[in-house]
Amino acid sequence: MSTTTPHEAVVLIHCPDRPGIVAQVTNCLNDVGGNILDAAQHTDFQSGTFLQRLHVSWPDQAPDVDAVDAALAELRDPLQLNWRIQWSGSLRQVAIFVSREDHCLHDLLLLRRDGQLNCRIAMIVSNHAGLADVARRFDVPFHHTPVAHSGDEQAEAVQRALLDSECIDLIVLARYMQVLSPTFVEAYRDRIINIHHSFLPAFAGGRPYHQAHEKGVKLIGATAHFATANLDDGPIIEQGVTRVTHRDRVEDMIRKGRDIERTVLARAVRWYLEDRVMVHNGRGVVFE
Amino acid sequence: MSTTTPHEAVVLIHCPDRPGIVAQVTNCLNDVGGNILDAAQHTDFQSGTFLQRLHVSWPDQAPDVDAVDAALAELRDPLQLNWRIQWSGSLRQVAIFVSREDHCLHDLLLLRRDGQLNCRIAMIVSNHAGLADVARRFDVPFHHTPVAHSGDEQAEAVQRALLDSECIDLIVLARYMQVLSPTFVEAYRDRIINIHHSFLPAFAGGRPYHQAHEKGVKLIGATAHFATANLDDGPIIEQGVTRVTHRDRVEDMIRKGRDIERTVLARAVRWYLEDRVMVHNGRGVVFE
Amino acid sequence: MSTTTPHEAVVLIHCPDRPGIVAQVTNCLNDVGGNILDAAQHTDFQSGTFLQRLHVSWPDQAPDVDAVDAALAELRDPLQLNWRIQWSGSLRQVAIFVSREDHCLHDLLLLRRDGQLNCRIAMIVSNHAGLADVARRFDVPFHHTPVAHSGDEQAEAVQRALLDSECIDLIVLARYMQVLSPTFVEAYRDRIINIHHSFLPAFAGGRPYHQAHEKGVKLIGATAHFATANLDDGPIIEQGVTRVTHRDRVEDMIRKGRDIERTVLARAVRWYLEDRVMVHNGRGVVFE
Amino acid sequence: MSTTTPHEAVVLIHCPDRPGIVAQVTNCLNDVGGNILDAAQHTDFQSGTFLQRLHVSWPDQAPDVDAVDAALAELRDPLQLNWRIQWSGSLRQVAIFVSREDHCLHDLLLLRRDGQLNCRIAMIVSNHAGLADVARRFDVPFHHTPVAHSGDEQAEAVQRALLDSECIDLIVLARYMQVLSPTFVEAYRDRIINIHHSFLPAFAGGRPYHQAHEKGVKLIGATAHFATANLDDGPIIEQGVTRVTHRDRVEDMIRKGRDIERTVLARAVRWYLEDRVMVHNGRGVVFE
Repeated sequence: MSTTTPHEAVVLIHCPDRPGIVAQVTNCLNDVGGNILDAAQHTDFQSGTFLQRLHVSWPDQAPDVDAVDAALAELRDPLQLNWRIQWSGSLRQVAIFVSREDHCLHDLLLLRRDGQLNCRIAMIVSNHAGLADVARRFDVPFHHTPVAHSGDEQAEAVQRALLDSECIDLIVLARYMQVLSPTFVEAYRDRIINIHHSFLPAFAGGRPYHQAHEKGVKLIGATAHFATANLDDGPIIEQGVTRVTHRDRVEDMIRKGRDIERTVLARAVRWYLEDRVMVHNGRGVVFE
Repeated sequence: MSTTTPHEAVVLIHCPDRPGIVAQVTNCLNDVGGNILDAAQHTDFQSGTFLQRLHVSWPDQAPDVDAVDAALAELRDPLQLNWRIQWSGSLRQVAIFVSREDHCLHDLLLLRRDGQLNCRIAMIVSNHAGLADVARRFDVPFHHTPVAHSGDEQAEAVQRALLDSECIDLIVLARYMQVLSPTFVEAYRDRIINIHHSFLPAFAGGRPYHQAHEKGVKLIGATAHFATANLDDGPIIEQGVTRVTHRDRVEDMIRKGRDIERTVLARAVRWYLEDRVMVHNGRGVVFE
Repeated sequence: MSTTTPHEAVVLIHCPDRPGIVAQVTNCLNDVGGNILDAAQHTDFQSGTFLQRLHVSWPDQAPDVDAVDAALAELRDPLQLNWRIQWSGSLRQVAIFVSREDHCLHDLLLLRRDGQLNCRIAMIVSNHAGLADVARRFDVPFHHTPVAHSGDEQAEAVQRALLDSECIDLIVLARYMQVLSPTFVEAYRDRIINIHHSFLPAFAGGRPYHQAHEKGVKLIGATAHFATANLDDGPIIEQGVTRVTHRDRVEDMIRKGRDIERTVLARAVRWYLEDRVMVHNGRGVVFE
Repeated sequence: MSTTTPHEAVVLIHCPDRPGIVAQVTNCLNDVGGNILDAAQHTDFQSGTFLQRLHVSWPDQAPDVDAVDAALAELRDPLQLNWRIQWSGSLRQVAIFVSREDHCLHDLLLLRRDGQLNCRIAMIVSNHAGLADVARRFDVPFHHTPVAHSGDEQAEAVQRALLDSECIDLIVLARYMQVLSPTFVEAYRDRIINIHHSFLPAFAGGRPYHQAHEKGVKLIGATAHFATANLDDGPIIEQGVTRVTHRDRVEDMIRKGRDIERTVLARAVRWYLEDRVMVHNGRGVVFE
């Protein structure tokens, strides 16, 4: 058996809530040799839905992947079970979209280099040429795809061909300043993570720091969320804030905000790649 | 000389920005025997306005209050100076408005008892009778003024008569769940501090924790602001946040929010009573 | 079936780590009619120990308490299982020890009144008479037990008789300024929660705010921990901090610290009463 | 007059506290054409010392630097005034010392590139060769000076020659893992900023995250401070913390700590370069 055989997996499940789910799922995985390393669960009482994240290992022998699938499939009908398995041996392909600012990009590249992000960064895509140097330093392919306007169909066709060529699993919008078309977003539903430089839902839309300054708030923030067709309204994964005062000009807020943006985005991406994030009823569920 | 003679004062000034203001104001106060204990200033470059807070003592002999006023008045024309002096010997009268929840009220009463709020709490006004006991324990007069609906003219007439009877300087809306009429608010312009249980401008209006839960945010907050005719839109004095997760139900958010609400409100009221708060162009300027 | 029949319980377990524990415990509870509402677990790899908190309901019929005990007992030998069950119908008895300051006491009393603490506050014990009034307002018996010196044997005998008379389950030291003897502490091992007004292990011992001021730190804090014979060194349950600057005098730090102290202590006590706290290898494990 | 003529300056003063200082200093600067843009002050009542930071502009004509010096010198005797002027046209030379970890280094280089640090980064000095690439990417000279042991005299002689060759004003120890000798530290008194990866004074010395994990704390932190001969005991400039739980292993703490370390260090360095930091009686005074 090769050393790359997957011996661990994360299973994310959701189904209608009812007594006995934990026991049935636990037994099911136990029967195919799995040992529960960690389990976290959440019941959404409003919708009567049970969600669970199970981190499973196969301590005795390599798992029979098909047998595991088959075992879970047997719960589909009795529990109306939905599930997803991410085997530890399988590395996800990530594309990072950027424009001119590189503070978020740098953080993601450094984290990947330091082994903190469980993925391959397969490409950097930008509507500007300026960050090609940064990509080169980290040996990541850089694609400059000029965008004439938000939702530019031709540009998006080029971008989607690039994404397809590397079977991209996750797109990270790391201060990408163009709006993607609903068609694009829908094709990568719950697989595009955006960082918005405000404490959403406050200051949705453009120039949030200008809005925050105008309003005189005492805290500014950033929000990492899944992109949806409704701009700035997708399920929230993580948020952070920092204090400002009347002394902070818009440019001070921009500077202070950068630390929050990159930290919040990096955390959201890491959690996603650790299969800690689910979307339920338009809300992000994070098994931290 | 009596022990109540004021020997300290806080002077708040604002005027068009121009070179030399600090020197002129400092000299003016020096000439009438004042020593600058602390000075904080802010220039709003957008409007070209200079704002300053000066904490002044009279170390050698008691100040001649009229002479200080006259000295500052001489700067009115050359600098277009606006100013306000609060002498340390003069105690402000505060009215606290409440409804059913008492966590903010308790905090203000305890802080006052412990000498942390530089004021006299002259009355508690409520549209419910329930908190009369709390008022009695702290020996503060309690007035139950039933309110038929938001902006109830009769109720407001009663309330304003009460406020007049004690020459109230500051009204604190400590989770008072009625909307005051524009007329009432205007009469106490920049002298009504409200606590809103959300991170404004997010979730303005009613039931903010329900809105926050619906939206799936990862941080909830509270905002202390001056009341204006535009509901929940007055100048912000202070804000705070705390983390929530998908596990928090609305009632958990309400519980977690209480600690933020009372802390943020207490801080705003304390700052106001220390003359650290100015309003400029609809924004709160806080000389912390 | 009476309305007081317990239909829910929290089970805290710990045992040596090995494959299959989750499945066995889950099955065991399932077999006696229990449904897992929530489960959180932690494996301490250093010591090879598995710890779990299970929130269990009996949706179909009232649990047979003896049968549940017997079922868990069958896992004792095969898993070397240690467990503790807290049935929802059983209310713990709490004693609060205070000295002169009442900000923590007030918070606990208000939280209890508002249904946020799942316990009965059976008594307030103090080495000073000053807070008798506060106790009376909340209808809690107050016992003034003067203490001649730290570890005063006579005083502790009186205190322990009081605690015994009400079968006290938990003692909360809410700014109680006397040191309890090792004998006393040992008798209530892992059942005495203390609030220390510093960010332990920094500034252990007396006058922590004076130490913090002397040192010029930029953050001050508070620590809720179990009391042990080694002063200020017991397992930590919760900590919090707040910013200070060079402008803050010791008395400002004391004031700012109060908000942290009461919040941190209240959180620790609430978590304990929700059976979220375990002690393992001298460290607090909190299933938040 | 050339465009590089300095038209702004920051003046830092300290002297024994007495009435009238603000007026005299303000007048002095006003007399030589200076306009106070911003002033912040602090009186340390324990030692009876007055400290002030003045941001001064010359709106009408370029300042006569000698005249400004002479004017301030006239206050030396009457006020026992100490002062330091930093003219806006003069750029400080900074050396960054590193070992193997580059998260703090990257942040400083990016901030400098983005114009957020008012300095020239003249060199990177390291006891390892590993970060030469990072230096090259940012076009900063890199010097590999192997260090045999802490306080290695030969290595320090090489380092000091390098520092002298570029007239270094400030040394930043950006996770430099060697201890500098007291002689070295004394030569750059109050001009070496170190980042320690703990919330000092907790966990001074080596392997602070291991200590924090052992102790079971719920918050970890980082401290930027001036280096002194007493290791980890110099005046604190800035501190930050982040939450951890029992689930965090030492390596998780190290990862979480990195964000705090780089943010706290960057803030301290920026404040220093904006002349916001003074040292008084072993404590850092930061005019934020």
